[in-house]
Amino acid sequence: MHSPKVSIVGGSGYVAGELLRLILLHPHFSIKQVVSESLAGKPVFRAHPHLRRFTDLRFSWLSELEECDLLFLALPHGEAMRRIDRFREIAPRIIDLSADFRLKDPVDYERWYGMIHPHPELLSQFTYGIPELHREEMKNASLISSAGCNATAVILALYPLFREGLVDCERTVIEVKVGSSEGGRRGSPASHHPERSSSVRAYKPTAHRHIAEMVQELGFGKKIELHFSATSVEMVRGVQATAHIFLEDDLDERAILKLFRSYYGNEPFIRIVRERSGIHRYPDPKILYGSNYCDIGFVRDGRSNRLVVISALDNLMKGGAGQAVQSANIMFGFDEKAGLEFPGLHPV
Amino acid sequence: MHSPKVSIVGGSGYVAGELLRLILLHPHFSIKQVVSESLAGKPVFRAHPHLRRFTDLRFSWLSELEECDLLFLALPHGEAMRRIDRFREIAPRIIDLSADFRLKDPVDYERWYGMIHPHPELLSQFTYGIPELHREEMKNASLISSAGCNATAVILALYPLFREGLVDCERTVIEVKVGSSEGGRRGSPASHHPERSSSVRAYKPTAHRHIAEMVQELGFGKKIELHFSATSVEMVRGVQATAHIFLEDDLDERAILKLFRSYYGNEPFIRIVRERSGIHRYPDPKILYGSNYCDIGFVRDGRSNRLVVISALDNLMKGGAGQAVQSANIMFGFDEKAGLEFPGLHPV
Amino acid sequence: MHSPKVSIVGGSGYVAGELLRLILLHPHFSIKQVVSESLAGKPVFRAHPHLRRFTDLRFSWLSELEECDLLFLALPHGEAMRRIDRFREIAPRIIDLSADFRLKDPVDYERWYGMIHPHPELLSQFTYGIPELHREEMKNASLISSAGCNATAVILALYPLFREGLVDCERTVIEVKVGSSEGGRRGSPASHHPERSSSVRAYKPTAHRHIAEMVQELGFGKKIELHFSATSVEMVRGVQATAHIFLEDDLDERAILKLFRSYYGNEPFIRIVRERSGIHRYPDPKILYGSNYCDIGFVRDGRSNRLVVISALDNLMKGGAGQAVQSANIMFGFDEKAGLEFPGLHPV
Amino acid sequence: MHSPKVSIVGGSGYVAGELLRLILLHPHFSIKQVVSESLAGKPVFRAHPHLRRFTDLRFSWLSELEECDLLFLALPHGEAMRRIDRFREIAPRIIDLSADFRLKDPVDYERWYGMIHPHPELLSQFTYGIPELHREEMKNASLISSAGCNATAVILALYPLFREGLVDCERTVIEVKVGSSEGGRRGSPASHHPERSSSVRAYKPTAHRHIAEMVQELGFGKKIELHFSATSVEMVRGVQATAHIFLEDDLDERAILKLFRSYYGNEPFIRIVRERSGIHRYPDPKILYGSNYCDIGFVRDGRSNRLVVISALDNLMKGGAGQAVQSANIMFGFDEKAGLEFPGLHPV
Repeated sequence: MHSPKVSIVGGSGYVAGELLRLILLHPHFSIKQVVSESLAGKPVFRAHPHLRRFTDLRFSWLSELEECDLLFLALPHGEAMRRIDRFREIAPRIIDLSADFRLKDPVDYERWYGMIHPHPELLSQFTYGIPELHREEMKNASLISSAGCNATAVILALYPLFREGLVDCERTVIEVKVGSSEGGRRGSPASHHPERSSSVRAYKPTAHRHIAEMVQELGFGKKIELHFSATSVEMVRGVQATAHIFLEDDLDERAILKLFRSYYGNEPFIRIVRERSGIHRYPDPKILYGSNYCDIGFVRDGRSNRLVVISALDNLMKGGAGQAVQSANIMFGFDEKAGLEFPGLHPV
Repeated sequence: MHSPKVSIVGGSGYVAGELLRLILLHPHFSIKQVVSESLAGKPVFRAHPHLRRFTDLRFSWLSELEECDLLFLALPHGEAMRRIDRFREIAPRIIDLSADFRLKDPVDYERWYGMIHPHPELLSQFTYGIPELHREEMKNASLISSAGCNATAVILALYPLFREGLVDCERTVIEVKVGSSEGGRRGSPASHHPERSSSVRAYKPTAHRHIAEMVQELGFGKKIELHFSATSVEMVRGVQATAHIFLEDDLDERAILKLFRSYYGNEPFIRIVRERSGIHRYPDPKILYGSNYCDIGFVRDGRSNRLVVISALDNLMKGGAGQAVQSANIMFGFDEKAGLEFPGLHPV
Repeated sequence: MHSPKVSIVGGSGYVAGELLRLILLHPHFSIKQVVSESLAGKPVFRAHPHLRRFTDLRFSWLSELEECDLLFLALPHGEAMRRIDRFREIAPRIIDLSADFRLKDPVDYERWYGMIHPHPELLSQFTYGIPELHREEMKNASLISSAGCNATAVILALYPLFREGLVDCERTVIEVKVGSSEGGRRGSPASHHPERSSSVRAYKPTAHRHIAEMVQELGFGKKIELHFSATSVEMVRGVQATAHIFLEDDLDERAILKLFRSYYGNEPFIRIVRERSGIHRYPDPKILYGSNYCDIGFVRDGRSNRLVVISALDNLMKGGAGQAVQSANIMFGFDEKAGLEFPGLHPV
Repeated sequence: MHSPKVSIVGGSGYVAGELLRLILLHPHFSIKQVVSESLAGKPVFRAHPHLRRFTDLRFSWLSELEECDLLFLALPHGEAMRRIDRFREIAPRIIDLSADFRLKDPVDYERWYGMIHPHPELLSQFTYGIPELHREEMKNASLISSAGCNATAVILALYPLFREGLVDCERTVIEVKVGSSEGGRRGSPASHHPERSSSVRAYKPTAHRHIAEMVQELGFGKKIELHFSATSVEMVRGVQATAHIFLEDDLDERAILKLFRSYYGNEPFIRIVRERSGIHRYPDPKILYGSNYCDIGFVRDGRSNRLVVISALDNLMKGGAGQAVQSANIMFGFDEKAGLEFPGLHPV
């Protein structure tokens, strides 16, 4: 196969920078254009300084966007849905990294995003972009809506348990701890270093929009409740999710392990972390920067029916650019791991 | 009243350093001796560098310990219970900062600490050291067992709700995020900077010993379950607790606020944080370093009966030395705020 | 003496927050008004969250500013010089924390600030605000221009050596490492947490404006050159200066120590750090947060005539609000340490 | 050519972990054994958690070490020199990452390391391991002594200037800021997180041992003095060097740039950073984690003959494992960039 040409729209953001890094080093894809209205004409390394010397590419205007084989949309929420017709003329395959096409039910956009979706008819055409759940669909998909970072961490942690119906569906409590890069490239009073540094900020104790995705992917026809809170902690990259699950039956850790292995044992980007001792015995985003892994571990509370499942990932990789490239690999029939071999660094 | 003489045993640790700072600047207490077997003979500022020039005091041997009016015990767990007879001969009033006398039921020491308590007869003589719950007892107490840092954050967040019986007693899920100073002065592989820096480490997802204290103080005769997990995040000082509570009745935020105000409205060291906007609208330990405040905030989940209560404190102050001095002030009939006026720093 | 009434103009910034904290707890001064055009009408704790419950004060409009005994100006550079006539009508004593009146020679404002000073006639009336150098003048001063944070760290480190003429005047190289709060409350791309976190950013390798103050205070009639660079490192508060000095004569460490003691032995806010071992043997801003100390240490290079002098301070305290209050204490004849007893925290 | 077999001795350390990562993903080399006396028998990912799932390899005992094509020695200083005869029997090519064979003059070991070197006859046989200076020698070398991390940052920054004799040889002042991973895997009171976090610690203001390497590589027959200080700052990885150079002639920035380009224009792992604006206009280790780049930038002080040269690298990569693999690539005639393409991450 010839090398598919890839373009990126919304090219100045952090996820776009990681997409660009992955495509530039990818064995099959090659980069065609990177669009940024705010930086058009400037070299891409001005926004992505780690790519100095890697490429002479410059940002393009949206009006200059040419046909390509695959288009990644890394725009702020609301932009992709406004222009989707135009983008579909540009490329036969699209992976959107915003929330614009993640939800199947148009009503959810009213409920969670406070807006009427302008293209409800397209929602069913987008594949929800977590390969571990939708790999088969992806093989023939032309439209993928890549999953949210928090949603990916939570859904992967809970999927086998909810799929098998082992859980009290109304009791699950989930906390995620997130880094500052989740907020994107644009500064705000919340991201000002003297304020953000070492803070432990309950930025979304209730009503986080990613809940809609989680419920959609974990419901399996049942009504479920996910009691979700998100807290910012001192790190730039990373999500750690801690899910407190209440088991219907008294499964021991061995049974849980068997379950997770049956679902994820062959997954290239999920590692089940199972160590009895040491400081790395539970998933920690710290060892995952730049990697596409989602690490998952768990522990049974001996005093109750609680199971604590812990997952970790890099929000810009498995929670962003990495997962999008993984999906693209599947879409094009490439080795799913192509361009995603980097294991992370330690210590860092 | 003359100035009561205070001595500290276990003087090289971080909590002892803060005790010393507070006593040296206290309007009523004065310091007599600081005992450290490992540093005896050396100036105290060798362990506590912020106290350079503040005092010429040197560490004493335990064998040199002389009579005093109040003895603070800041020893590793298990040490105070072994030597309590000796210490009671030294001082008519003792405040122990370890867990050695916190639990009323000797069986709890077997269950949570895996040991037979050598002095079960003393357990009922110690007042549990959270002034907001036990102020009246403290006024006549000669023995106080100061509360654990995580336990203080959790108990203060939940006390009004559990006291009033408003909560589904078996469903509460609590997560605390803690800083590295909780681990004490002694290094370990877990505290090695390259490993600990920016980590999000699920160090105790289940079975944390502080649960025993929480259940003791929040039970009020009922069987309760607290599903508790502790995670280390990047900070040196601080505890933030997030409690997910499921309400029996549908109380709105106004009713919750009224409840908290009725319990804590006059408390000198509890601040109810109630702001509609801004980056400081929920409690964050970042603004509490060095202060004795416990900040408490909350939010109702509009989609379920969940109430999220968030509390924050400095583990070495309201969760350690500060609370112990607050208790000492009450014990001696001083203004409860004496020596504890420092409000914290911002930004830091 | 009655309690002098103090007002602050430019009240939303970080230095103003610290000024307010210090005045609220000061034994002699009392606060009258805090002016902020951007936050007028709002409670001061909205900008300064550590002061919740400490005061019910609200920000005032500049137009509401009333007469007071002492006015602190904490405005952006250029603002105080424009309105100084107005402020002098408001208060008989002014302490300006900007650079607007620090330099004696109007030509320096052209050279370093690229502007013609509108009030050159006032420059000689302002006392340069480092008490250790200008204490006597301060006692009768009505106008003080508080020194810059980097300048204070450097000048205090070098003053005894330059005053005594022991130094090769053209060779001194100085590096300061600074925290993010130096940049003030307003965010910028440089202060966006994902970019600023853990960075080591040479933000001003040459031509830093504070050089003008340093040369002014250290010249003593001679031409001197100070080769100065400033680098941002990961911390919120703090300045550490490392000065590489080349000695004219071969002074050993004992002689240097004697010199520093003769200058600073009785200074309440300078500590000469002199320990042979341990991790705190050189000045580090980490143990100074919230304190008004400037710590100074040094080491002779055994292989050359280099002397390395290291100083550290909290840029918002001894480099900002703390030094201004220290100056105010002198101005009003109070104990110089009044309200400034806080020694810092450890660990933090 | 067949795939050369590589073994690592001293396999539990941080540099060894990075070596292992690089070799596991290298297109030509393959790993044979990793020796660690302390962890023999355990899977390598116990020490190097980012390599979970990447390899099933276990640590070997030193006594089990078999013949291989290339041996990396990552032992504590002093160990390699004691056992070098044994290691030379194992492998025809050795790259030592310690300081044991870096210095050519045996007297330097007495002067800087306080020891008599047991194998002075071997010192001339080792090639000093900075490829940019010794590439030609490396092509035929069987013994390479990989350069120190601080030394690499400084030597690369200064090499063109000293080589061309443009510098006042006795005046250069250099400061490096380093991260905590430089101290290695073993904890100490200095690396305890509560103490190390956010500290700015002058850990070696004078007499750093790496000076010996710098002087050796930059002297070119002349007596030179390098006034060097090292300060620890808050980061895990990274070195930033700031060199204050005093030019003999009045070269402008254009001439300096031309000089650096003539030396480094074709170097695959040196980037000359030359941007007029933006927050990434000077080298910063923050964007280099995991990369083998050394970034170099500079600025002329318009008020004196000072030139400030700033360099940055990842101490475990270009200052450790990366540079060693780069040298190995040259030794074996492979593409110098093989296995070293990772550009770093941003933001992180």
